[in-house]
Amino acid sequence: MEFPSKLIENAVEELAKLPGVGKKTALRLALHLLKNESEDTFLLAESLVKMRTEVKHCKQCHNISDTEVCGICSNPLRDKSLLCVVSDIRDVIAIENTSQYKGLYHVLGGVISPLEGVGPSDLHIDSLLERLLPNSEVKEVLMAISPTMEGDTTAFYLTRKLRDHQNLKITSIARGIPVGGELEYTDEITLGRSIVERTAYGRA
Amino acid sequence: MEFPSKLIENAVEELAKLPGVGKKTALRLALHLLKNESEDTFLLAESLVKMRTEVKHCKQCHNISDTEVCGICSNPLRDKSLLCVVSDIRDVIAIENTSQYKGLYHVLGGVISPLEGVGPSDLHIDSLLERLLPNSEVKEVLMAISPTMEGDTTAFYLTRKLRDHQNLKITSIARGIPVGGELEYTDEITLGRSIVERTAYGRA
Repeated sequence: MEFPSKLIENAVEELAKLPGVGKKTALRLALHLLKNESEDTFLLAESLVKMRTEVKHCKQCHNISDTEVCGICSNPLRDKSLLCVVSDIRDVIAIENTSQYKGLYHVLGGVISPLEGVGPSDLHIDSLLERLLPNSEVKEVLMAISPTMEGDTTAFYLTRKLRDHQNLKITSIARGIPVGGELEYTDEITLGRSIVERTAYGRA
Repeated sequence: MEFPSKLIENAVEELAKLPGVGKKTALRLALHLLKNESEDTFLLAESLVKMRTEVKHCKQCHNISDTEVCGICSNPLRDKSLLCVVSDIRDVIAIENTSQYKGLYHVLGGVISPLEGVGPSDLHIDSLLERLLPNSEVKEVLMAISPTMEGDTTAFYLTRKLRDHQNLKITSIARGIPVGGELEYTDEITLGRSIVERTAYGRA
Protein backbone atom coordinates (compact mmCIF):
# COMPACT_ATOMS: atom_id res chain seq x y z
CA MET A 1 0.00 0.00 0.00
CA GLU A 2 1.37 3.40 -0.94
CA PHE A 3 0.58 6.47 1.10
CA PRO A 4 0.36 10.08 -0.06
CA SER A 5 2.27 11.21 3.02
CA LYS A 6 5.32 9.90 4.90
CA LEU A 7 3.77 11.13 8.16
CA ILE A 8 0.67 9.03 7.63
CA GLU A 9 2.78 6.08 6.58
CA ASN A 10 4.77 6.26 9.83
CA ALA A 11 1.62 6.51 11.93
CA VAL A 12 0.04 3.57 10.06
CA GLU A 13 3.17 1.48 10.55
CA GLU A 14 3.24 2.14 14.27
CA LEU A 15 -0.49 1.50 14.67
CA ALA A 16 -0.23 -1.73 12.68
CA LYS A 17 2.22 -3.08 15.30
CA LEU A 18 -0.66 -3.30 17.76
CA PRO A 19 -2.19 -6.77 18.12
CA GLY A 20 -5.16 -7.36 15.81
CA VAL A 21 -4.56 -4.16 13.84
CA GLY A 22 -3.71 -4.62 10.16
CA LYS A 23 -2.61 -1.94 7.72
CA LYS A 24 -6.14 -1.17 6.55
CA THR A 25 -7.45 -0.79 10.08
CA ALA A 26 -4.41 1.29 10.99
CA LEU A 27 -5.14 3.62 8.06
CA ARG A 28 -8.76 3.93 9.17
CA LEU A 29 -7.61 4.85 12.69
CA ALA A 30 -5.06 7.37 11.37
CA LEU A 31 -7.62 9.06 9.11
CA HIS A 32 -10.10 9.11 11.99
CA LEU A 33 -7.55 11.00 14.12
CA LEU A 34 -6.86 13.38 11.24
CA LYS A 35 -10.56 14.10 10.83
CA ASN A 36 -11.15 14.84 14.51
CA GLU A 37 -9.82 17.63 16.71
CA SER A 38 -6.07 17.49 17.16
CA GLU A 39 -6.77 17.65 20.90
CA ASP A 40 -8.08 14.07 20.69
CA THR A 41 -4.81 12.84 19.23
CA PHE A 42 -2.79 14.69 21.86
CA LEU A 43 -4.89 13.23 24.67
CA LEU A 44 -4.50 9.73 23.25
CA ALA A 45 -0.73 10.06 22.82
CA GLU A 46 -0.32 11.61 26.25
CA SER A 47 -2.37 8.95 27.99
CA LEU A 48 -0.32 6.20 26.35
CA VAL A 49 3.04 7.75 27.22
CA LYS A 50 1.91 8.57 30.75
CA MET A 51 0.65 5.03 31.25
CA ARG A 52 3.84 3.50 29.87
CA THR A 53 6.16 5.63 31.97
CA GLU A 54 4.24 5.93 35.22
CA VAL A 55 2.38 2.67 35.72
CA LYS A 56 4.00 0.55 38.41
CA HIS A 57 3.65 -3.09 39.24
CA CYS A 58 2.58 -3.81 42.80
CA LYS A 59 5.68 -5.15 44.56
CA GLN A 60 3.53 -7.63 46.45
CA CYS A 61 1.11 -9.13 43.90
CA HIS A 62 2.59 -7.83 40.60
CA ASN A 63 -0.75 -6.40 39.54
CA ILE A 64 -0.55 -3.06 37.75
CA SER A 65 -0.91 -0.13 40.05
CA ASP A 66 -0.43 3.62 40.35
CA THR A 67 1.34 3.11 43.68
CA GLU A 68 4.11 0.87 45.09
CA VAL A 69 1.53 -1.45 46.64
CA CYS A 70 -1.71 -1.79 44.71
CA GLY A 71 -5.16 -0.77 45.91
CA ILE A 72 -6.21 -4.37 46.46
CA CYS A 73 -3.17 -5.35 48.56
CA SER A 74 -3.40 -2.20 50.66
CA ASN A 75 -7.16 -2.45 51.21
CA PRO A 76 -7.72 -3.41 54.88
CA LEU A 77 -11.16 -4.85 54.01
CA ARG A 78 -9.72 -7.59 51.76
CA ASP A 79 -9.38 -11.07 53.22
CA LYS A 80 -5.64 -11.63 53.63
CA SER A 81 -6.06 -15.34 54.31
CA LEU A 82 -7.16 -16.01 50.72
CA LEU A 83 -4.75 -15.71 47.79
CA CYS A 84 -5.87 -16.08 44.17
CA VAL A 85 -3.13 -17.03 41.68
CA VAL A 86 -3.76 -15.80 38.11
CA SER A 87 -1.55 -15.70 35.05
CA ASP A 88 -2.42 -12.25 33.81
CA ILE A 89 -3.54 -8.78 34.88
CA ARG A 90 -6.64 -9.19 32.71
CA ASP A 91 -7.70 -12.12 34.90
CA VAL A 92 -7.58 -9.85 37.96
CA ILE A 93 -9.83 -7.35 36.20
CA ALA A 94 -12.22 -10.15 35.12
CA ILE A 95 -12.45 -11.60 38.64
CA GLU A 96 -12.81 -8.16 40.24
CA ASN A 97 -15.73 -7.46 37.91
CA THR A 98 -17.61 -10.47 39.31
CA SER A 99 -17.64 -8.85 42.82
CA GLN A 100 -17.47 -12.43 44.15
CA TYR A 101 -13.90 -12.40 45.44
CA LYS A 102 -12.67 -10.52 48.47
CA GLY A 103 -9.17 -11.98 48.92
CA LEU A 104 -5.79 -10.94 47.53
CA TYR A 105 -4.14 -11.82 44.21
CA HIS A 106 -0.82 -12.97 42.88
CA VAL A 107 -0.16 -12.33 39.19
CA LEU A 108 2.31 -14.82 37.70
CA GLY A 109 2.84 -12.80 34.53
CA GLY A 110 2.24 -15.77 32.21
CA VAL A 111 2.14 -19.56 32.23
CA ILE A 112 4.85 -22.17 31.89
CA SER A 113 5.23 -22.82 28.15
CA PRO A 114 8.32 -24.75 27.01
CA LEU A 115 7.34 -24.13 23.38
CA GLU A 116 7.53 -20.36 23.87
CA GLY A 117 10.59 -20.64 26.10
CA VAL A 118 8.76 -19.59 29.26
CA GLY A 119 10.06 -21.49 32.28
CA PRO A 120 9.14 -21.21 36.00
CA SER A 121 11.97 -18.72 36.54
CA ASP A 122 10.37 -16.30 34.05
CA LEU A 123 7.23 -16.08 36.19
CA HIS A 124 6.64 -14.49 39.59
CA ILE A 125 6.79 -17.85 41.34
CA ASP A 126 9.59 -17.12 43.81
CA SER A 127 7.72 -14.14 45.20
CA LEU A 128 4.58 -16.30 45.45
CA LEU A 129 6.45 -18.90 47.51
CA GLU A 130 7.80 -16.10 49.71
CA ARG A 131 4.26 -14.92 50.39
CA LEU A 132 3.37 -18.45 51.50
CA LEU A 133 6.19 -19.01 54.00
CA PRO A 134 5.02 -20.72 57.25
CA ASN A 135 4.49 -17.44 59.08
CA SER A 136 2.18 -16.19 56.33
CA GLU A 137 -1.41 -15.09 56.93
CA VAL A 138 -2.54 -17.00 53.84
CA LYS A 139 -4.65 -20.06 54.59
CA GLU A 140 -5.97 -20.83 51.10
CA VAL A 141 -4.51 -20.54 47.62
CA LEU A 142 -7.11 -20.42 44.86
CA MET A 143 -5.70 -21.39 41.45
CA ALA A 144 -7.56 -19.36 38.81
CA ILE A 145 -5.50 -20.29 35.78
CA SER A 146 -7.09 -20.91 32.36
CA PRO A 147 -7.53 -24.66 31.77
CA THR A 148 -5.22 -24.86 28.76
CA MET A 149 -2.34 -27.34 28.63
CA GLU A 150 0.12 -24.63 29.69
CA GLY A 151 -2.23 -23.37 32.39
CA ASP A 152 -2.77 -26.85 33.82
CA THR A 153 0.99 -27.47 33.75
CA THR A 154 1.58 -24.26 35.68
CA ALA A 155 -1.08 -25.08 38.25
CA PHE A 156 0.37 -28.59 38.64
CA TYR A 157 3.90 -27.19 39.05
CA LEU A 158 2.72 -24.78 41.75
CA THR A 159 0.75 -27.47 43.57
CA ARG A 160 3.90 -29.63 43.68
CA LYS A 161 5.93 -26.71 45.02
CA LEU A 162 3.35 -26.11 47.74
CA ARG A 163 2.76 -29.70 48.87
CA ASP A 164 4.96 -29.29 51.99
CA HIS A 165 2.81 -26.43 53.25
CA GLN A 166 0.74 -28.64 55.52
CA ASN A 167 -1.78 -26.05 56.66
CA LEU A 168 -2.35 -24.49 53.26
CA LYS A 169 -5.58 -25.32 51.47
CA ILE A 170 -5.18 -25.36 47.70
CA THR A 171 -8.33 -24.90 45.64
CA SER A 172 -9.16 -24.35 41.98
CA ILE A 173 -11.96 -22.41 40.34
CA ALA A 174 -14.85 -24.75 39.50
CA ARG A 175 -14.94 -26.34 36.04
CA GLY A 176 -18.38 -26.99 34.65
CA ILE A 177 -21.13 -25.94 32.31
CA PRO A 178 -21.15 -22.13 31.90
CA VAL A 179 -24.23 -20.40 33.24
CA GLY A 180 -26.63 -20.18 30.28
CA GLY A 181 -24.72 -22.93 28.47
CA GLU A 182 -26.50 -25.79 26.72
CA LEU A 183 -25.71 -29.29 27.98
CA GLU A 184 -25.79 -30.91 24.55
CA TYR A 185 -23.27 -28.49 23.05
CA THR A 186 -20.75 -28.75 25.90
CA ASP A 187 -17.56 -30.69 25.14
CA GLU A 188 -17.29 -34.11 26.81
CA ILE A 189 -14.39 -33.22 29.10
CA THR A 190 -16.21 -30.27 30.63
CA LEU A 191 -19.46 -32.21 30.88
CA GLY A 192 -17.59 -35.16 32.43
CA ARG A 193 -15.90 -32.94 35.02
CA SER A 194 -19.18 -31.20 35.79
CA ILE A 195 -20.61 -34.61 36.74
CA VAL A 196 -17.58 -35.83 38.71
CA GLU A 197 -17.39 -32.53 40.57
CA ARG A 198 -21.12 -32.15 41.08
CA THR A 199 -22.22 -29.86 43.89
CA ALA A 200 -25.06 -30.13 46.42
CA TYR A 201 -28.24 -28.66 44.96
CA GLY A 202 -28.73 -24.97 45.79
CA ARG A 203 -25.07 -24.35 46.60
CA ALA A 204 -24.21 -22.34 43.53
CA MET B 1 -15.24 -2.41 34.00
CA GLU B 2 -13.01 -1.40 36.92
CA PHE B 3 -9.30 -0.92 36.45
CA PRO B 4 -6.55 -1.36 38.99
CA SER B 5 -4.90 1.84 37.80
CA LYS B 6 -6.18 5.29 36.83
CA LEU B 7 -3.39 5.55 34.25
CA ILE B 8 -4.56 2.40 32.49
CA GLU B 9 -8.16 3.55 32.74
CA ASN B 10 -7.30 6.82 31.01
CA ALA B 11 -5.37 5.07 28.26
CA VAL B 12 -8.20 2.57 27.74
CA GLU B 13 -10.76 5.36 27.58
CA GLU B 14 -8.76 7.24 24.96
CA LEU B 15 -8.10 4.09 22.90
CA ALA B 16 -11.77 3.13 23.06
CA LYS B 17 -12.67 6.39 21.29
CA LEU B 18 -11.07 5.01 18.11
CA PRO B 19 -13.56 3.55 15.61
CA GLY B 20 -14.10 -0.19 16.04
CA VAL B 21 -12.21 -0.32 19.34
CA GLY B 22 -14.29 -1.33 22.36
CA LYS B 23 -13.20 -1.30 25.99
CA LYS B 24 -11.97 -4.90 25.93
CA THR B 25 -9.89 -4.35 22.80
CA ALA B 26 -8.57 -1.09 24.24
CA LEU B 27 -7.46 -2.92 27.38
CA ARG B 28 -5.72 -5.56 25.26
CA LEU B 29 -3.89 -2.82 23.33
CA ALA B 30 -2.91 -1.00 26.55
CA LEU B 31 -1.57 -4.18 28.16
CA HIS B 32 0.30 -5.00 24.96
CA LEU B 33 2.04 -1.62 25.13
CA LEU B 34 2.81 -2.17 28.82
CA LYS B 35 4.37 -5.55 28.07
CA ASN B 36 6.58 -4.27 25.27
CA GLU B 37 9.51 -1.86 25.34
CA SER B 38 8.49 1.64 26.35
CA GLU B 39 10.27 2.79 23.18
CA ASP B 40 7.41 1.26 21.15
CA THR B 41 4.83 3.35 22.98
CA PHE B 42 6.91 6.51 22.54
CA LEU B 43 7.30 5.88 18.81
CA LEU B 44 3.56 5.28 18.43
CA ALA B 45 2.62 8.40 20.38
CA GLU B 46 5.18 10.51 18.56
CA SER B 47 4.10 9.33 15.11
CA LEU B 48 0.46 10.13 15.91
CA VAL B 49 1.19 13.62 17.24
CA LYS B 50 3.58 14.36 14.39
CA MET B 51 1.01 13.20 11.85
CA ARG B 52 -1.77 15.23 13.46
CA THR B 53 0.26 18.43 13.68
CA GLU B 54 2.30 18.29 10.49
CA VAL B 55 0.13 16.64 7.85
CA LYS B 56 -1.17 19.17 5.37
CA HIS B 57 -3.98 19.01 2.91
CA CYS B 58 -2.97 19.70 -0.68
CA LYS B 59 -4.37 23.13 -1.48
CA GLN B 60 -5.23 21.96 -4.99
CA CYS B 61 -6.84 18.54 -4.60
CA HIS B 62 -7.35 18.35 -0.77
CA ASN B 63 -5.52 15.04 -0.59
CA ILE B 64 -3.31 14.60 2.48
CA SER B 65 0.23 15.63 1.85
CA ASP B 66 3.51 16.47 3.56
CA THR B 67 3.81 19.57 1.38
CA GLU B 68 1.61 22.50 0.30
CA VAL B 69 0.87 20.80 -3.02
CA CYS B 70 0.75 17.00 -2.91
CA GLY B 71 3.08 14.65 -4.75
CA ILE B 72 0.40 13.72 -7.28
CA CYS B 73 -0.55 17.30 -8.19
CA SER B 74 3.10 18.34 -8.48
CA ASN B 75 4.15 15.30 -10.51
CA PRO B 76 4.85 16.48 -14.09
CA LEU B 77 4.22 12.95 -15.42
CA ARG B 78 0.57 12.93 -14.35
CA ASP B 79 -2.08 13.63 -16.98
CA LYS B 80 -3.47 17.07 -16.12
CA SER B 81 -6.37 16.75 -18.55
CA LEU B 82 -7.99 14.01 -16.43
CA LEU B 83 -9.51 14.73 -13.03
CA CYS B 84 -10.89 12.00 -10.77
CA VAL B 85 -13.44 13.13 -8.17
CA VAL B 86 -13.53 10.99 -5.01
CA SER B 87 -15.20 11.46 -1.66
CA ASP B 88 -12.39 10.37 0.60
CA ILE B 89 -8.61 10.17 0.91
CA ARG B 90 -8.89 6.40 1.22
CA ASP B 91 -10.36 6.30 -2.28
CA VAL B 92 -7.23 8.03 -3.62
CA ILE B 93 -5.05 5.40 -1.94
CA ALA B 94 -7.26 2.60 -3.31
CA ILE B 95 -7.15 3.95 -6.86
CA GLU B 96 -3.41 4.67 -6.68
CA ASN B 97 -2.85 1.04 -5.66
CA THR B 98 -4.43 -0.16 -8.91
CA SER B 99 -1.69 1.61 -10.93
CA GLN B 100 -4.39 2.14 -13.59
CA TYR B 101 -4.90 5.87 -13.21
CA LYS B 102 -2.43 8.56 -14.26
CA GLY B 103 -4.55 11.72 -13.93
CA LEU B 104 -5.12 14.07 -11.00
CA TYR B 105 -7.60 13.87 -8.15
CA HIS B 106 -10.08 16.04 -6.34
CA VAL B 107 -11.09 14.92 -2.83
CA LEU B 108 -14.55 16.16 -1.85
CA GLY B 109 -14.12 15.27 1.82
CA GLY B 110 -17.44 13.43 2.02
CA VAL B 111 -20.73 13.05 0.20
CA ILE B 112 -23.93 15.04 0.32
CA SER B 113 -26.02 13.56 3.11
CA PRO B 114 -29.02 15.57 4.34
CA LEU B 115 -29.57 13.04 7.14
CA GLU B 116 -26.13 13.75 8.57
CA GLY B 117 -26.40 17.44 7.84
CA VAL B 118 -23.75 17.43 5.12
CA GLY B 119 -24.66 19.83 2.33
CA PRO B 120 -22.75 20.83 -0.82
CA SER B 121 -21.15 23.77 1.01
CA ASP B 122 -19.49 21.38 3.49
CA LEU B 123 -17.63 19.66 0.66
CA HIS B 124 -14.75 20.88 -1.53
CA ILE B 125 -17.11 21.57 -4.41
CA ASP B 126 -16.34 25.28 -4.93
CA SER B 127 -12.65 24.54 -5.37
CA LEU B 128 -13.57 21.75 -7.82
CA LEU B 129 -15.63 24.16 -9.92
CA GLU B 130 -12.71 26.61 -9.83
CA ARG B 131 -10.40 23.92 -11.20
CA LEU B 132 -12.86 23.41 -14.07
CA LEU B 133 -13.18 27.04 -15.22
CA PRO B 134 -13.15 27.44 -19.02
CA ASN B 135 -9.39 28.11 -19.17
CA SER B 136 -8.69 24.86 -17.30
CA GLU B 137 -6.48 22.08 -18.68
CA VAL B 138 -9.01 19.46 -17.55
CA LYS B 139 -10.82 17.73 -20.41
CA GLU B 140 -12.44 14.86 -18.52
CA VAL B 141 -13.90 14.50 -15.05
CA LEU B 142 -14.10 10.91 -13.81
CA MET B 143 -16.65 10.44 -11.02
CA ALA B 144 -15.34 7.72 -8.71
CA ILE B 145 -17.87 7.99 -5.92
CA SER B 146 -19.24 4.94 -4.12
CA PRO B 147 -22.65 3.96 -5.58
CA THR B 148 -24.62 4.52 -2.38
CA MET B 149 -27.68 6.77 -2.30
CA GLU B 150 -25.59 9.66 -0.92
CA GLY B 151 -22.80 9.00 -3.41
CA ASP B 152 -25.16 8.93 -6.37
CA THR B 153 -26.82 12.13 -5.13
CA THR B 154 -23.43 13.83 -4.94
CA ALA B 155 -22.42 12.68 -8.41
CA PHE B 156 -25.77 13.84 -9.79
CA TYR B 157 -25.39 17.23 -8.09
CA LEU B 158 -21.91 17.68 -9.55
CA THR B 159 -23.04 16.62 -13.02
CA ARG B 160 -25.81 19.26 -12.89
CA LYS B 161 -23.29 21.89 -11.79
CA LEU B 162 -21.01 21.00 -14.69
CA ARG B 163 -23.58 20.72 -17.48
CA ASP B 164 -22.69 24.17 -18.87
CA HIS B 165 -19.06 23.13 -19.39
CA GLN B 166 -19.58 22.23 -23.05
CA ASN B 167 -16.14 20.77 -23.72
CA LEU B 168 -15.89 18.78 -20.53
CA LYS B 169 -16.38 15.04 -20.74
CA ILE B 170 -17.95 13.58 -17.60
CA THR B 171 -17.43 9.87 -17.01
CA SER B 172 -18.08 7.44 -14.19
CA ILE B 173 -16.20 4.36 -13.05
CA ALA B 174 -17.78 1.25 -14.58
CA ARG B 175 -20.44 -0.57 -12.60
CA GLY B 176 -20.61 -4.30 -13.13
CA ILE B 177 -19.80 -7.74 -11.85
CA PRO B 178 -16.59 -7.66 -9.76
CA VAL B 179 -13.69 -9.60 -11.23
CA GLY B 180 -13.93 -13.10 -9.71
CA GLY B 181 -17.59 -12.50 -8.81
CA GLU B 182 -20.28 -15.07 -9.45
CA LEU B 183 -23.11 -14.03 -11.76
CA GLU B 184 -25.81 -15.85 -9.83
CA TYR B 185 -24.93 -14.18 -6.52
CA THR B 186 -24.83 -10.64 -7.90
CA ASP B 187 -27.70 -8.36 -6.96
CA GLU B 188 -30.18 -7.56 -9.73
CA ILE B 189 -29.34 -3.88 -10.01
CA THR B 190 -25.65 -4.53 -10.58
CA LEU B 191 -26.35 -7.41 -12.96
CA GLY B 192 -28.89 -5.26 -14.80
CA ARG B 193 -26.46 -2.37 -15.20
CA SER B 194 -23.70 -4.74 -16.27
CA ILE B 195 -25.95 -5.79 -19.17
CA VAL B 196 -27.15 -2.30 -20.10
CA GLU B 197 -23.59 -0.98 -19.98
CA ARG B 198 -22.01 -3.98 -21.68
CA THR B 199 -18.62 -3.42 -23.25
CA ALA B 200 -17.09 -4.70 -26.50
CA TYR B 201 -15.44 -8.06 -25.89
CA GLY B 202 -11.75 -7.82 -25.03
CA ARG B 203 -11.90 -4.18 -23.93
CA ALA B 204 -11.55 -4.74 -20.18
